Amino acid sequence: MKTKILSIIILMALSLSSFKTAENPKRIVFFGDSITQAGVGKTGYITKMAEMLGTMGLASKYELIGAGIGGNKIYDLYLRHEEDVLAKNPNIVIIYVGINDVWHKTSSRTGTDADKFERFYNALINRLQKANIQVVICTPTVIGEKFDATNENDGDLNAYSNIIRKIATDNQCKLIDLRKTFLSFEEKNNIENKASGILTTDRVHLNEAGNQFLAETMWETIKTL
Amino acid sequence: MKTKILSIIILMALSLSSFKTAENPKRIVFFGDSITQAGVGKTGYITKMAEMLGTMGLASKYELIGAGIGGNKIYDLYLRHEEDVLAKNPNIVIIYVGINDVWHKTSSRTGTDADKFERFYNALINRLQKANIQVVICTPTVIGEKFDATNENDGDLNAYSNIIRKIATDNQCKLIDLRKTFLSFEEKNNIENKASGILTTDRVHLNEAGNQFLAETMWETIKTL
Amino acid sequence: MKTKILSIIILMALSLSSFKTAENPKRIVFFGDSITQAGVGKTGYITKMAEMLGTMGLASKYELIGAGIGGNKIYDLYLRHEEDVLAKNPNIVIIYVGINDVWHKTSSRTGTDADKFERFYNALINRLQKANIQVVICTPTVIGEKFDATNENDGDLNAYSNIIRKIATDNQCKLIDLRKTFLSFEEKNNIENKASGILTTDRVHLNEAGNQFLAETMWETIKTL
Amino acid sequence: MKTKILSIIILMALSLSSFKTAENPKRIVFFGDSITQAGVGKTGYITKMAEMLGTMGLASKYELIGAGIGGNKIYDLYLRHEEDVLAKNPNIVIIYVGINDVWHKTSSRTGTDADKFERFYNALINRLQKANIQVVICTPTVIGEKFDATNENDGDLNAYSNIIRKIATDNQCKLIDLRKTFLSFEEKNNIENKASGILTTDRVHLNEAGNQFLAETMWETIKTL
Repeated sequence: MKTKILSIIILMALSLSSFKTAENPKRIVFFGDSITQAGVGKTGYITKMAEMLGTMGLASKYELIGAGIGGNKIYDLYLRHEEDVLAKNPNIVIIYVGINDVWHKTSSRTGTDADKFERFYNALINRLQKANIQVVICTPTVIGEKFDATNENDGDLNAYSNIIRKIATDNQCKLIDLRKTFLSFEEKNNIENKASGILTTDRVHLNEAGNQFLAETMWETIKTL
Repeated sequence: MKTKILSIIILMALSLSSFKTAENPKRIVFFGDSITQAGVGKTGYITKMAEMLGTMGLASKYELIGAGIGGNKIYDLYLRHEEDVLAKNPNIVIIYVGINDVWHKTSSRTGTDADKFERFYNALINRLQKANIQVVICTPTVIGEKFDATNENDGDLNAYSNIIRKIATDNQCKLIDLRKTFLSFEEKNNIENKASGILTTDRVHLNEAGNQFLAETMWETIKTL
Repeated sequence: MKTKILSIIILMALSLSSFKTAENPKRIVFFGDSITQAGVGKTGYITKMAEMLGTMGLASKYELIGAGIGGNKIYDLYLRHEEDVLAKNPNIVIIYVGINDVWHKTSSRTGTDADKFERFYNALINRLQKANIQVVICTPTVIGEKFDATNENDGDLNAYSNIIRKIATDNQCKLIDLRKTFLSFEEKNNIENKASGILTTDRVHLNEAGNQFLAETMWETIKTL
Repeated sequence: MKTKILSIIILMALSLSSFKTAENPKRIVFFGDSITQAGVGKTGYITKMAEMLGTMGLASKYELIGAGIGGNKIYDLYLRHEEDVLAKNPNIVIIYVGINDVWHKTSSRTGTDADKFERFYNALINRLQKANIQVVICTPTVIGEKFDATNENDGDLNAYSNIIRKIATDNQCKLIDLRKTFLSFEEKNNIENKASGILTTDRVHLNEAGNQFLAETMWETIKTL
């Protein structure tokens, strides 16, 4: 699987280290689907976050690792968590998954039942927490950018977001409520109620503005860890 | 098809007719799916409306005809509009359809594409209006009573409701916006955000309170015709 | 709708008419979906049939009219049969439909239930036969060319073909059993059991060999009418 | 999960043990879905097999353990293989799964993509073989008993059966080709081509004859191990 992952380690410039420090950087694995796979691309959200860290002079404090694979659902993350997270020995994992679990119901009839989504998510968190990794989880962003609840998958996206909020509480994980943040953004900025083109290219995958917004949103939580 | 329809003519009590009137009653056909089929049952919405008319002393002014068949979508109404509406020679037809067009996408993969929904709806209205029938159309009620946009079909129900609102404008039909009215009711009265049991028995089909509420909602428009 | 249809009247060369004939050519409407829409294209099956007629010196005996629209299902044919068939006043109509009724179940969750497929088909035939048009119906060809019953929609395609065979018997229509003919061809010629590339370009739409084979198959029945 | 499994250990009558034997019985786990869950019921296939063993005087040679859970797909087996198979320390595991992976595509839009089906299956076998358990795998039986390839899911069932045959070869597992055996039985015995009632009660779940036939079919392979 290693060869298939576009997982790159973004090494921060160490040239700023005029300060002596024995401290290791915090290693963060971003664990997710195609959005995270693209996150390490030139304008991806992980790359954007690395740039932000550089600008803030925090480059040496964090090591950001992308571990996204296109089409992944919660059970795919479970299948590869040993190789792609545990083996990396991170301090923190940011799990950002759920879009395909909902979307594939309508695109290919291979979505994930709500009860199984919860079961696999809990099992995954349990494995990671046992390895002393701090787990942060995210609600899914959007499948369609219309803000008035007329995107076909909105009902399920909202329902699965509620499940993830419950999972965060049950497992005492930090939650990054991307769905809430993205919907607020759309309500303010998507004046023509378009299905795509504001934060996404195709209703799902993020354009550069979307990647920037995601990086900033995640950073608000990551900086507190 | 006649034998399959639970279409009854609810004859109004004529005993109240102390007033002399040469006027014919307004004949109204309710054209729809299983909710309308059940509408002529003991506690159905058409029966409820007939009772309301009796109480208001308006029994002799209206003739209410149920023409609902379970599982019907817009194209099924088109197929049987000659026999079940035109042949009845009504003054008014209330079309209340759309739930199955959305619901059957997820229940049996035989829903109706949005563009075809609009095409058949326009063709149906065109046929009825050409016969000098006043056409009133309704947005669909609910598939799941949760008011917070977490019912699986909410996105599509909202989108198809928008299509129906557009169709009403395009064809200069009166619109009864059932979806809006029902969602407002749920927001006020469905305190525990339950999926069923407030206005429906099973997320879709109306219980007695739902039938009463539907009768009252429709009457607000019908009385103005 | 007229403007959307790629319906062309293929006028037969009249130059051969050294014979005097008072006889009108047989007018045949081909009523169907995207395959029939493409049928009037440069290498489409209706064009191929016209070429065959020319070669056989039968050009003046037939007038071939394409009336296919992409994405059409049985109820779409019903909706437009007045404008696109009755108004053309043909002697014969060849109905070739059913692929989308099955395929859209899995591609977009908007297929046609088996019982409604039969109901609309019967209603359509009834309308056409009442206008003294000879109705010929076809079973659907293929969605995937594998001959060993491993194409995802094979079960339904076989079941809907059985329904069409029954409809032919019930309405005393000639049947062109395309599914049977195509499967026999695949069994003999699709040695590697490929999903496409033998008679189709993309598992459904016909390549030139497929169009030629379809034209020849249909001609075997048409010549007997 | 233990409490949810109807997993019983069918202890063989030890009364025959007039022979002294130091040999341990072969412990076999049957790992699957609702059919295996029902397999330990009064007329289930595991119970039937235990009865057969008793009759043949082989009761002391085998220990049969049911580990089926209704609704399970390949990834559900992967999730619980440690607790429900490895922890039981069996000599042999019979994996009989795949029906829900196909069926849930059409029943609830939560089936399993073919490529993921193969990936999880390989991963599961790998884990079990590493623990020195002999893995035997089965093709799925039926979703609908019609023998003429007109059951809606037949195409996919045949395709996933081919995948399982390939997996058996790739991992050097014994294969019990249930689909082939069941289809042969239907062809001989299902004279009226009925959808259920021959080996199943409801097109999927086995009646007593189906359980008996399954027990006998599996035994043909198990006795050789």
